[in-house]
Formats: sequence, C-alpha cells, structure tokens
Amino acid sequence: MSETVLYDYWRSSASYRVRIALNMLRFDYRTVPVNLLEGAHKAQEHLDRNPQGLVPALEIDGLMLTQSLAIIEYLAETRHGSGFLPADPPGRQRVRALAYAIALDIHPICNLGVAAHVMELTGGGDAVRAAWMRKFIGDGLSAVERMLDAPWTGTFCHGDVPTMADICLVPQVYNAERWGVDLSGLERIRRIADACAELPAFRAAHPDAVKPA
Amino acid sequence: MSETVLYDYWRSSASYRVRIALNMLRFDYRTVPVNLLEGAHKAQEHLDRNPQGLVPALEIDGLMLTQSLAIIEYLAETRHGSGFLPADPPGRQRVRALAYAIALDIHPICNLGVAAHVMELTGGGDAVRAAWMRKFIGDGLSAVERMLDAPWTGTFCHGDVPTMADICLVPQVYNAERWGVDLSGLERIRRIADACAELPAFRAAHPDAVKPA
Repeated sequence: MSETVLYDYWRSSASYRVRIALNMLRFDYRTVPVNLLEGAHKAQEHLDRNPQGLVPALEIDGLMLTQSLAIIEYLAETRHGSGFLPADPPGRQRVRALAYAIALDIHPICNLGVAAHVMELTGGGDAVRAAWMRKFIGDGLSAVERMLDAPWTGTFCHGDVPTMADICLVPQVYNAERWGVDLSGLERIRRIADACAELPAFRAAHPDAVKPA
Repeated sequence: MSETVLYDYWRSSASYRVRIALNMLRFDYRTVPVNLLEGAHKAQEHLDRNPQGLVPALEIDGLMLTQSLAIIEYLAETRHGSGFLPADPPGRQRVRALAYAIALDIHPICNLGVAAHVMELTGGGDAVRAAWMRKFIGDGLSAVERMLDAPWTGTFCHGDVPTMADICLVPQVYNAERWGVDLSGLERIRRIADACAELPAFRAAHPDAVKPA
C-alpha cells in the first residue's frame, strides 16, 4: 500500500472535513501544509496536484484526489464500515442533502477569495467581510437548522452515528464562531456540534490541533 | 408507484440538472413551476417541501427530496443502469470531483440572491452583476477545462457516456452564455456541451424547452 498524504491548510474547512474522515477511519497519513496565505496553492507544484488550485488534495491508493466530498465518497466506497453514509437510499439522500446545504450553499460563498472580491468591489475593509460572512453563514445555518427539525435527527445529524453531514457541519460551525455568527437560536446545530466535539476523530482534526507552530 | 412530481423553475440550473437526469432515465414525471421571480420559493407551501426555500424539490417514491446532486445520487442508487456514475471507485471520484468543481465552486457564488447582495453592497446595477457572473463563471470553468485535460475525458467529461459531471456542466455553460462569458479558450468544455446538446434527454431539459408560455 502506498503512503497516504494529505495536502491541506490548517484553517481550510474542506481540509478539516477530510481530516475528520481520515481520523474516523483511523488512517495513518502524513500531512503536507499548503500555505494559502503565501499563495502556495497557486504554485505549479500544487496545480499539478489539483488543477483548481484548491486544498485539500489527497494522495491515496496511487491516486491524487481532489474535492473534499468526492474524497469522502471515495473513502466510503473503498473502506467499508466508515458510517459516512447510512445504508438505506432515503437516509443516504438525506445525509447528502444536509452535507450539500452546507458544502454547496454556505461554504463556497464564504470562500476567502469571494469575500476578498467583495471587499475590492465595495472598497470596504474587514467590517464588510465580516458582515458578508455573518449574513451567508447565518442564513445558511438557519436553513440547516430547519432541515434538522425532522424525526431522523438523533445525537448527530442523522441518527446516532456521525455521518458526512456532521463532517460538513463541524467545520462550518468553527467558521461561524470565527466570524461571530449568532448561533443562539440554532439549538440542534449547537447540540450536534457539541456531541461531535466529544469524539477524538473530530478533536484531532480541529484547526487548533493541527496549526503549524 | 406514487406519482413523480418535480417542483422546479425553468431557468434554475439545479432544476435543469434534475430534468436532464429524469429524462435520461425516461421517467414519466409532472412538473409544478415555482416562480422564483414572484417569491413562490419563500411561501410556506414551498418551505414545507424544502426548508431551504430552494428549487428543485422532487416528490418520488413517497419521499420529498431536495438538493439536486443528492437527488441524482438517489436516482443512481435506486434506478440501475443510469450511468450517472461509472462503476469503478476512481472513476466515480473523478466524476464527482468534476461535478463539484461546478456545483460547489461556481454555481452557488453566482446564485441570484448572492449577486443581488453584491449589487446592494456596491450600489452598482446590472453591470456589476454581469461582471460578477463573468468573473466567477469564467475562472471556475477555466479550472474545469484544466481538469478535463486528462486521459479519461472522452466524448463526454468521463468516457463516452454522459455522467453526473455532464449533467452539471451543461446548465453551467447555459448560464455562461447567458452572462456573456468568453468560452473561446475552453475547447474541451465547448466540445462536450455540443455533444450533450445532440442528446434528446438534454434537449428536452433545456430552459427554452420548458419555459412557461
């Protein structure tokens, strides 16, 4: 078996998701930091790994994989018993819909490059960026909270084992807290994030746990 | 078998994706328009279908499903022979990565609500919106073009049968043309979109083919 290498950035939500997934599988992997602040993701060395110039990229099974959710689906298909998706198609559909409500409808809009472009267009500074983050993370998580108002929600987003939905939720809650989003009305989300924070796989993946010294 | 009903909007990219998928499966379905311009997606009747207040929602098998890509995965799992995803895990990973490079990294940033907020913040009008669309669709499709520079690309994004990647690509190309994105340098994308346009399932799903009179 070839070595597994994760090219990531400590604060990237998409990298954080893949770290949680690898930890849940008790994977032995090596991390190579790609410093987004220094533009390392736009260097040819990284573009050869990921033509999109994004993190993460995962070297595994002799392949170079990109797109965090596609990586997690690959791990679910090739490593049995991951629990990333439930066994029944309706349950899998619900978990994916929750994951996408975060990974599609919140996260890309709050990408640092998008927020930087808004700052440039408006001539506004950090306050414009923070308001942008608060609006789109706040609106998006409120919709997720409503989706969680369903009988299938348990200790975690779907039942009592963590799935791909929780893997997406936790990094988004981390970002929400970073930007000062008011989470007080989002009781289900806060309860689920707290339950995840008890799990070693989630704790070890936290940005503070992997931040370079 | 209960009736299959698609709640959609003719110009929505996510609805367009699901129409293509249902057509590829030769599904007999009824469409109920949700007029986004009149705010019908924010009415309680639609929020009961989709707590996110987005289109599409698909009533199928006695379930109400949301999130276009999660719907397509559900169809792939429950209707055999769809071809939406290849059989091999590395191929499935590549198709999903291409689909997500469009559905995550381009489409949400160019959501009309996001663009409207940019117009509000900048005080700019239609020109600001069009420039926003051209920047993010243009940059995003250029990255997809680079991802398609790979031996697995065939007549379509992955080999010679249309997959979920093509189902995402075609509505994005429609949007690119709508906003005047320069596609001249994106030869693989243009060639694949032209190949898709030959297929009845894609033609019947086109916004112009389903636009209310």
